[in-house]
Amino acid sequence: MDSSLLWGYHPVYEAIRAGRRKIHSIHMVLEKLRPRSDKLVRAARRAGIPIQGTSPQQLTVMVGHKRHQGICAKLSAYPLSSIDVILERSEIGGEAPFILVLDQIVDPQNFGAIVRTAHCAGVHGVIVPKKNSAPPSGTVSKASAGALEHMHIALVTNVVNALKDLKDKGLWIGGADQHGRDIVFDADLSGPLVIVVGGEEKGIRALVKKQCDFLMAVPQAGPIGSLNASAAAGIVMYEAVRQRRLQ
Amino acid sequence: MDSSLLWGYHPVYEAIRAGRRKIHSIHMVLEKLRPRSDKLVRAARRAGIPIQGTSPQQLTVMVGHKRHQGICAKLSAYPLSSIDVILERSEIGGEAPFILVLDQIVDPQNFGAIVRTAHCAGVHGVIVPKKNSAPPSGTVSKASAGALEHMHIALVTNVVNALKDLKDKGLWIGGADQHGRDIVFDADLSGPLVIVVGGEEKGIRALVKKQCDFLMAVPQAGPIGSLNASAAAGIVMYEAVRQRRLQ
Repeated sequence: MDSSLLWGYHPVYEAIRAGRRKIHSIHMVLEKLRPRSDKLVRAARRAGIPIQGTSPQQLTVMVGHKRHQGICAKLSAYPLSSIDVILERSEIGGEAPFILVLDQIVDPQNFGAIVRTAHCAGVHGVIVPKKNSAPPSGTVSKASAGALEHMHIALVTNVVNALKDLKDKGLWIGGADQHGRDIVFDADLSGPLVIVVGGEEKGIRALVKKQCDFLMAVPQAGPIGSLNASAAAGIVMYEAVRQRRLQ
Repeated sequence: MDSSLLWGYHPVYEAIRAGRRKIHSIHMVLEKLRPRSDKLVRAARRAGIPIQGTSPQQLTVMVGHKRHQGICAKLSAYPLSSIDVILERSEIGGEAPFILVLDQIVDPQNFGAIVRTAHCAGVHGVIVPKKNSAPPSGTVSKASAGALEHMHIALVTNVVNALKDLKDKGLWIGGADQHGRDIVFDADLSGPLVIVVGGEEKGIRALVKKQCDFLMAVPQAGPIGSLNASAAAGIVMYEAVRQRRLQ
């Protein structure tokens, strides 16, 4: 079914800006337009997207909950990418590949938060297993503040095979793992790189971990010692950003 | 009123472990005890805290919503610290002071997420203005996965005066600011340090910014270029962790 929904200001605005999805229509509460909505309306008009006025109640019916911020869009399905497209992006940018693998992140909020940080860090694409992972949904787009609309996401059947292929292409695979031997700051993250982040409860699966060239821990003080998955992913990605700036 | 509520497994368990609050009673759904609840029940018994069985419905009435995960605690109010206590903690640990100032973070989820990361980063304490900030509530404790129960939080009337005092004591004040002149990785964060993080929408207030010895930006790629407040705070705090490990 080539039909999907987005809600919230940022996802709809970023979908227009990214221009990757066919936006059939935008439905918004026109009475209480905030200044930022002007920008969105202008962008939609330039793209020839029809805008329909509606009520908060109608929007709640359309999206199935109240977290729509007075706006939704009907549009084509999320445009998935392939690993080849992700690698092409690094070539076009003249940058060493910088890829993220999320091994069974099930919480769409965490998925969205990680995609937002990955976007800011300049990650070329995110690889996600088809099974047992949150899909790139409207909830994820909202949690990513619309960054999902710009990010390249590849769904794969088999993460192990994907990592093997990437290793053959000369990328290094670094797993973020609290029991990793190295501290993330001591790992070399400056070259062609895949960062693997595990699911919220179980971490990286054993078979996936076996494919990692190295495992790196974020140092933690204090009795709790358990960073949130998206905070840990952000720290690891930005350590790579720091090292790559020194090249 | 010396009476307060916590809900959710981590806040209640960490409140017992931290031992800073007088826990009057724990109310939990005993039928569907998960393995981790055993640990909590044992810790509560050792601390002589009465445990009462209850139903999910009764808990929902007690805490006012359904996000209680089958457990709540009635306990004394959140134990606030002072800046002196925070500085003492760094002395006791033989570490250069490492303090976080949150200048009007209004979202309790962001506050909690930042406190969780600060705890893992070994921050000695967090300074928060009394006005226009989320208070250290049960919602914050939940969002921090209980880290709030261990963290030292000082509420101050005037952030500018607090920063002046800390400068007089030899601390350096670094503001996290997207328009900052320096990139965070180029700033020296290895000494006695205060990191100032601004509110979600407005950033650091102008008068507070004036007290900063330097302003540092997290480098951002891509068209959105807007890190979440807690992700940005985590990256800055962990850059300080990295630098301090090299001392």
